[in-house]
Amino acid sequence: MSTVAIISAAGLSKRMGQPKLFLDLGGQTVLERTLVVFQATKVIDEIILVVNQEDVERSKKLSFSKIKQVIIGGQERQDSVCNGLKALPTEADIVAVHDGARPLVTPAIVERAVAEAKKTGAAVVGMPVKDTIKQITNDELRMTNEGITILKTLERKQLWQAQTPQVFKKDILLKAYEAKGIVKATDDAMLVEKLGHKVTMVLGSYANIKITTPEDLIFAQAIVDKGGK
Amino acid sequence: MSTVAIISAAGLSKRMGQPKLFLDLGGQTVLERTLVVFQATKVIDEIILVVNQEDVERSKKLSFSKIKQVIIGGQERQDSVCNGLKALPTEADIVAVHDGARPLVTPAIVERAVAEAKKTGAAVVGMPVKDTIKQITNDELRMTNEGITILKTLERKQLWQAQTPQVFKKDILLKAYEAKGIVKATDDAMLVEKLGHKVTMVLGSYANIKITTPEDLIFAQAIVDKGGK
Repeated sequence: MSTVAIISAAGLSKRMGQPKLFLDLGGQTVLERTLVVFQATKVIDEIILVVNQEDVERSKKLSFSKIKQVIIGGQERQDSVCNGLKALPTEADIVAVHDGARPLVTPAIVERAVAEAKKTGAAVVGMPVKDTIKQITNDELRMTNEGITILKTLERKQLWQAQTPQVFKKDILLKAYEAKGIVKATDDAMLVEKLGHKVTMVLGSYANIKITTPEDLIFAQAIVDKGGK
Repeated sequence: MSTVAIISAAGLSKRMGQPKLFLDLGGQTVLERTLVVFQATKVIDEIILVVNQEDVERSKKLSFSKIKQVIIGGQERQDSVCNGLKALPTEADIVAVHDGARPLVTPAIVERAVAEAKKTGAAVVGMPVKDTIKQITNDELRMTNEGITILKTLERKQLWQAQTPQVFKKDILLKAYEAKGIVKATDDAMLVEKLGHKVTMVLGSYANIKITTPEDLIFAQAIVDKGGK
């Protein structure tokens, strides 16, 4: 029985304008800062690192004893996770999927999610949303300067933003991924939810952001400079 | 005809642990940084500043020529905005409501929202959400270490996080506030939507955060240090 982390680090960094995982964050790359956390916590036994083809060589040079395999990712994030799942060792019973671009995760957060998943089968970390969330009518108009019509405002106190790690009993996640062709999902938990399996949310942190835009990198640098997470 | 900004600065700063509006942010207070923007843009004619009773004296000493009135806020954010609305001059026809704790707004954002509201009657600024948003079953369990059951995952590409300013034709906002006793809303636009009036979303920025938690202050300081917004 072992708990394996699949670190998804094969993104395209489209909104960053440069490959974000190898950017410097206080003397370490974004990806190294992520890996340090999974190396440090004793609840993770092994790491499968999923990267872009062009990053395989430098990824293999990373010295973290828990990285047992470096795998090439797929076109979409879920293809990458899927490749990681195929590489799982037989003894794995718990799988923690984490974005390589969330370097501000902490061992405590990982441990909380793993403990919950061992209990319930499926757990994700997240935080209550801060802003009011509105549903718009037409997603084709995203990110333009044209006004977009608001369809409705959602009840804020019922909404949480999902982060990673998202941790699952292996069998549940494998079954969810078998069905993934049918389902379009923006995170792994969504696939599990669609199966009808209960997923629980545990407390992440507001610092545990995914580095997506240049503002996120500024935030992460500031948090690292302060010596905190 | 004039465009009046109501700056809501009467919050309790519960999650910050200290009054956030008078915290230093690169040599100016959070509130001053907000006011500078509304002072600078020529689309705003006048500012009504709504503060807590204990902040009235120091707020009156702020030297921004557009601040015509300093008003005492109410118990909830909407009570504060309501007090601001009662103080509107007769010539006002457009009202821009803005959180005092959003100092990273820019003149361009304010101008975009005002222009759209002049066209459509009601406009808010916002950004597409980055994380997957999940609806939970029981909002009583927020912010605990207990796992919370996820009810469902929302379609991310249709979701935007609303920011401020939220700008309205005066008559529309007044009518929405007359109905507010019936409606529990987390932002002003929601009251207007409930009236059945169309509200449009225009592009804000990911930097235009509301300073709510200590992480937000770290982020704002980093943005200010970089000299950008």
